[in-house]
Amino acid sequence: MVNKKMYALGSRRSVIREIFEYAKKRAAEIGGENVFDFSIGNPSVPAPACVDEAIERIVREIPSVRLHGYTSAQGDKDCRDKIAANLRARFGADISGDDFYFTCGAAASLTISLHALACPGDEFLVFAPYFAEYKVFVEGAGGKFTPLPSEDGTFQPDFAALERAMNPSVKALIVNSPNNPSGVVYGEETIGRLAAFLRGKKKEYGHPVYLITDEPYRELVYDKKTKVPFIPNYYDDTLVCYSYSKSLSLPGERIGYIAVSPRAADAKAVYAAICGAGRMLGFVCAPALFQRVAAECDGKTADLEVYRRNRDLLYGGLTACGFSCVYPDGAFYLFVRSPKPDANAFCERAKKYELLFVSGDDFGCPGYVRIAYCVSTEQIRRALPLFKALAAEYSLPKVK
Amino acid sequence: MVNKKMYALGSRRSVIREIFEYAKKRAAEIGGENVFDFSIGNPSVPAPACVDEAIERIVREIPSVRLHGYTSAQGDKDCRDKIAANLRARFGADISGDDFYFTCGAAASLTISLHALACPGDEFLVFAPYFAEYKVFVEGAGGKFTPLPSEDGTFQPDFAALERAMNPSVKALIVNSPNNPSGVVYGEETIGRLAAFLRGKKKEYGHPVYLITDEPYRELVYDKKTKVPFIPNYYDDTLVCYSYSKSLSLPGERIGYIAVSPRAADAKAVYAAICGAGRMLGFVCAPALFQRVAAECDGKTADLEVYRRNRDLLYGGLTACGFSCVYPDGAFYLFVRSPKPDANAFCERAKKYELLFVSGDDFGCPGYVRIAYCVSTEQIRRALPLFKALAAEYSLPKVK
Repeated sequence: MVNKKMYALGSRRSVIREIFEYAKKRAAEIGGENVFDFSIGNPSVPAPACVDEAIERIVREIPSVRLHGYTSAQGDKDCRDKIAANLRARFGADISGDDFYFTCGAAASLTISLHALACPGDEFLVFAPYFAEYKVFVEGAGGKFTPLPSEDGTFQPDFAALERAMNPSVKALIVNSPNNPSGVVYGEETIGRLAAFLRGKKKEYGHPVYLITDEPYRELVYDKKTKVPFIPNYYDDTLVCYSYSKSLSLPGERIGYIAVSPRAADAKAVYAAICGAGRMLGFVCAPALFQRVAAECDGKTADLEVYRRNRDLLYGGLTACGFSCVYPDGAFYLFVRSPKPDANAFCERAKKYELLFVSGDDFGCPGYVRIAYCVSTEQIRRALPLFKALAAEYSLPKVK
Repeated sequence: MVNKKMYALGSRRSVIREIFEYAKKRAAEIGGENVFDFSIGNPSVPAPACVDEAIERIVREIPSVRLHGYTSAQGDKDCRDKIAANLRARFGADISGDDFYFTCGAAASLTISLHALACPGDEFLVFAPYFAEYKVFVEGAGGKFTPLPSEDGTFQPDFAALERAMNPSVKALIVNSPNNPSGVVYGEETIGRLAAFLRGKKKEYGHPVYLITDEPYRELVYDKKTKVPFIPNYYDDTLVCYSYSKSLSLPGERIGYIAVSPRAADAKAVYAAICGAGRMLGFVCAPALFQRVAAECDGKTADLEVYRRNRDLLYGGLTACGFSCVYPDGAFYLFVRSPKPDANAFCERAKKYELLFVSGDDFGCPGYVRIAYCVSTEQIRRALPLFKALAAEYSLPKVK
């Protein structure tokens, strides 16, 4: 009697959710401090002080009817202008408030963009490992979802695989850098090469292949040398999907945006279709108070030093035990090679030590596990001896 | 290159939006105080004090990571339990927190419910006049949208039309009481008759016809004698779609819920499909801060006395000029019969007097206009002589 696809999506719990429930159960049995949950990508660092200050000031200063009233569907004009001005200042971006559409976070940015672009028969490419919901979102918009391999070990784009998969039905390539789950960042050279490749295809096909850039981790990089290119500066046919969930530690408040590069092919039609998709999906407008908070705090971040410390401690500790892992420049995940090919079995074995993390299978990348370090530094410190004992079970070569 | 349907939905401005822009233009030309805009359903009364108090207290008391973090997809458990307890206390409802799913407002409640229920070939019925976006939402979920007439003049359900239209492909009937745009409330007798009719069809077809009740105006009634029945008490196969946009004057904050009656057919499957639809559409969770605000303020309302005063003044004034209008028990609209059949022409003529309102054509009900009284009482007072002059153009019979 109900829609079968929706029922399946709603009743099959995600693996991450399963582990979350398992962690709660174990915590009740042996105490929360003895369970080491590295499965969830929920920011562990408070929102920067500007957020709560902005909330209190805005509530005090703006009259209720105006503050809590509908904004236009694309979002409050002043707020959009402010964020666009910041992006111009930070990245020299060619972007204005009229290119912005506020959304209820990154997931909404993606579903709205996909519904706006997808025509019958369209295909969407993404490099593995990828956030599992991409498949749900692409297929929900009626598109065909095609994952591509990345280069083994580096998780940079596999251009040969891209070349083989590319065809005139491809409407867009989704890129996610800094990447969940690998932590890898696509540098300027990679983005430049991608852009050149896609420009070539545009010429060949007579129509563009859009880039949908999913960027909730844009600011979460930890080394001075790591630059996250602002992709519309390199490739015109780009839709930037952004969220403040990670940068401002606001995942529950559902605030983000889509920015359509004004240089994109059919930019005005794409923007109109985004307005139409938002309307059809029932979004009306993004939460009004948090549109203002985002505009005031855009460019600021939660205390990233905590994540940097966590990354260094965990990456150093795990590689010293002999685990193999690409160096993560950003986001808050390590993507660790499973000592034996079956990553699910590895996850199960880790549970003996109360170490909880998720298999790469769920990210389209078997043989790896994702270990989230958006946890307390103390948890990492206390978990390291357990990781060491786990490594010993596999006789991993110890690294000095 | 973009999805044609989405482009059409996003580029064809709604009539209400057109008038909104026209009002801004006229205000610039002749001064805002000389433009009488009755076109928009945006609450004109501030949120009750409890809202901003709750925001400030919650921000002060709950640690940032917990407050602004993801809630479960269906919403914070404590908040759901609290609202369910209120509904049990207010209506003797058979409902628990586990039957609740928080949404980003009424539009999201509807799109999620429709996606959850709609199977290929399914049809959805609604009595005219109806909120225009219903058609967009039903068709977006892949359903067939079928409007039915109401009884002429009273805007109560036309049961003969319902009987004629009903068939085994009908998955649900959407009801909206208090109604936008007519202000009409379905009383206990009407709901009882509807319920009996649908129960008969369930027996006949061997499967239920769900009621989707769109109830953002549930609390907006102005006379002691007006009771708004809590529909799950009368009909088991009910999904309540609620929003705090009007009751708490929070339309921009996007907070509402779906409550699936635990007595509904396949209630657990319907709830799971709702979770799946919310996931596929990209909602993740409803805004976390406002889940808590809603739970704290549920059952309270903005100052409805203002709307009652506005209604009495405008209804009295317009009927005294000779305009004909069903008595509006709730919501904040008058649905006035156009003096001549072409309601669009009537709207145009009213513009001469700087009186702005929208044609009933957009609500599936030609020959009427919607006049929103969620404006300042002063605006109504100053507009009445203009309505009188407008009436005189049509030689309407004056009423003493």
